[in-house]
Amino acid sequence: MAAAAASEHTPLDPLDLPEGHPFGPHNLPYGVFSRAGESPRVGVRLGDHVLDAGAVAESLGSPHGPLLARRTLNPLLAAGRSAWSDVRRAVTSWVTDPAHREAVRPHLHPLAAVTLHLPFEVADYVDFYASENHATNLGRLFRPDEAALKPNWKHLPVGYHGRAGTVVVSGTDVVRPSGQRKGPQDPAPVFGPSVRLDIETEVGYVVGVPSPQGTPVPLAAYRDHVFGLCLLNDWSARDIQNWETVPLGPHLGKSFATSISAWITPLEALDAARVPAPARTVPLLPYLDDSDAEPAGYDLRITVTLNGQVVSEPPFAGMYWTGAQMLAHMTVNGASLRTGDLYGSGTVSGAAENERGSLIEMTWNGQRPLELADGKRGFLEDGDVVTLTAWAPGPAGTRVHLGEVTGRITARL
Amino acid sequence: MAAAAASEHTPLDPLDLPEGHPFGPHNLPYGVFSRAGESPRVGVRLGDHVLDAGAVAESLGSPHGPLLARRTLNPLLAAGRSAWSDVRRAVTSWVTDPAHREAVRPHLHPLAAVTLHLPFEVADYVDFYASENHATNLGRLFRPDEAALKPNWKHLPVGYHGRAGTVVVSGTDVVRPSGQRKGPQDPAPVFGPSVRLDIETEVGYVVGVPSPQGTPVPLAAYRDHVFGLCLLNDWSARDIQNWETVPLGPHLGKSFATSISAWITPLEALDAARVPAPARTVPLLPYLDDSDAEPAGYDLRITVTLNGQVVSEPPFAGMYWTGAQMLAHMTVNGASLRTGDLYGSGTVSGAAENERGSLIEMTWNGQRPLELADGKRGFLEDGDVVTLTAWAPGPAGTRVHLGEVTGRITARL
Repeated sequence: MAAAAASEHTPLDPLDLPEGHPFGPHNLPYGVFSRAGESPRVGVRLGDHVLDAGAVAESLGSPHGPLLARRTLNPLLAAGRSAWSDVRRAVTSWVTDPAHREAVRPHLHPLAAVTLHLPFEVADYVDFYASENHATNLGRLFRPDEAALKPNWKHLPVGYHGRAGTVVVSGTDVVRPSGQRKGPQDPAPVFGPSVRLDIETEVGYVVGVPSPQGTPVPLAAYRDHVFGLCLLNDWSARDIQNWETVPLGPHLGKSFATSISAWITPLEALDAARVPAPARTVPLLPYLDDSDAEPAGYDLRITVTLNGQVVSEPPFAGMYWTGAQMLAHMTVNGASLRTGDLYGSGTVSGAAENERGSLIEMTWNGQRPLELADGKRGFLEDGDVVTLTAWAPGPAGTRVHLGEVTGRITARL
Repeated sequence: MAAAAASEHTPLDPLDLPEGHPFGPHNLPYGVFSRAGESPRVGVRLGDHVLDAGAVAESLGSPHGPLLARRTLNPLLAAGRSAWSDVRRAVTSWVTDPAHREAVRPHLHPLAAVTLHLPFEVADYVDFYASENHATNLGRLFRPDEAALKPNWKHLPVGYHGRAGTVVVSGTDVVRPSGQRKGPQDPAPVFGPSVRLDIETEVGYVVGVPSPQGTPVPLAAYRDHVFGLCLLNDWSARDIQNWETVPLGPHLGKSFATSISAWITPLEALDAARVPAPARTVPLLPYLDDSDAEPAGYDLRITVTLNGQVVSEPPFAGMYWTGAQMLAHMTVNGASLRTGDLYGSGTVSGAAENERGSLIEMTWNGQRPLELADGKRGFLEDGDVVTLTAWAPGPAGTRVHLGEVTGRITARL
């Protein structure tokens, strides 16, 4: 859990937000909040307030109470696409229809007065590797004598399972992990706190509707299963990862913490941000071929700040693989989905140097440190705070803001 | 869920089992069962019967009712080592003290009349690679021009996360997965049902007591966190795995299904089976150094049958890494544990040819097929049934049986 940052100014009236406010009624992301001494419950963000959605449902006699008066988003996630639309329509009317104003107002709480919690119980967590620029950069860094991309990369969205139990909500401190590392010059591995602690700027997909074991989920069913998106920082200890990773992939270099934003933006709020995937340079097998599918890319503009200073602005629109393809691939072997499954896009990196989503790329493995106001950074130091934010084009020229995922590095006690 | 195999003979009186019966009162593994039309509940196996432990607790006014009258083992798992001992002592007295005989008898149900369920809710699932013989065999098969073991293998227990949502109980059919594969001669990957479907004979460790994020669990705390062991078959599609696996490790080649036995054997039942780990050939870092620790290996004798024919007898005693080391490693970066975490040993293979735990080793990548009564097998065919069983030395010359994990391969509908 994480205390929301206190606003320094009086918050705007959430029922009278300026036209096009990025957390206006065209956005309405879901989260879980609590007030001091009370239980966590589902909330909807409106401006700098959170709407106690279950309380409003109850006071208005809405049939959606059982999905909203809950401690997590899981019941809403499980309810399915048509319920998601119905609830969104209801919440939109609660916050826009003047007839509801007096019933709604008592259930709006300033963000500064609530605690935000992990919004859903994470079932399985899978992390993909869907940015061609990122995979190419890492290939050049780690395997300079080979082709940057492995032969499978353009045929399937490469991914692996991560640790669901260490997914934490934005604002949670991240303890610097210790582990084994071994440089090429070391005769044996050494143990200690990671000295190459990094971020991975990602977008997370939150699965709502389960699927049975043995039955793949086709591309076209993406919006029937995925409820919405969040921001995700897949903290990575590069030194630990580098030594452990052959032959079964990353484990402890990643499993100590993964942070997600407190707000889950429903796919419906991102309709205006949908963009086609980029041109593919090799033919895709039918289960991944989206040339005739509806666009499943999203034009999200991400900003990465380190100690308040902007260090990168990765564009999500150019990702090689879409969330629909990742879902189709993840289930094509018959793997089932559960409510609360979370999958990450992998690090989002654009083609330009100021669009890279990890420090290892930004600093080229520490060789070209970032120059910050408080000194140089190859990798993260204790006390460093990393924050990812993003926005997307909304309807009629508005913006949809995706909130933030932030975390501070602390030394182990 | 899975129907228990019907006995062909009248079951023995569970309250009057022959001395040293492998499911006698020195064993008492836990599972979850249901009778027709009733809800699942915790059971304890005794001979060929299951004891409705919650019902007995209630009828005897035992304080352990709240841990036992449940739908899963999770509350018992979470209760901790001292509660595990107390409950085991109580159940032992219920099934051995003649004073309880009449209270207990109505709550014993023949296995043939119940359905067994997944005994606990799996939180995270991690799969290790702890057999030196197995890792060496796979290294020789896949990387014949390199050292069989990667440089990290003797310094840390290599492992990766698997899919928790597709862990199923023994008896559940396994649908043959489809996916991409690409042989060295293929110009591009092809899609279809796996043609190299394999087993991995493993032992699973079931975590009971959670640990906080940021705090490692030392070797010495192994028995405070791990409740017991199960048998585990990590079904593996070698062709899918081979093509997808670089650079992030196995994903769809494994994620379609992992089967575990219906019975969880508590560590306390395996005290007589504890054996020291084998001599290590390289020095271990302090957090893994078990030279002064209590023995954490187990002398389990596993049998693998394919369509009823014994094809291998892998010994668990010689595993290079112990469950205590895997736990210490898995958490040394601060990763938390949750009740229901499951970790597998990796394929158990002995040094001898008839002790290998996977078909890819037994048949040397299909080049030396098994000769079965119903034909040759390089890898699994539709309809094949694989069953793993195991026993361990118990107190005073008895045996402790670990039950079985079985599964049949079916074609996708």
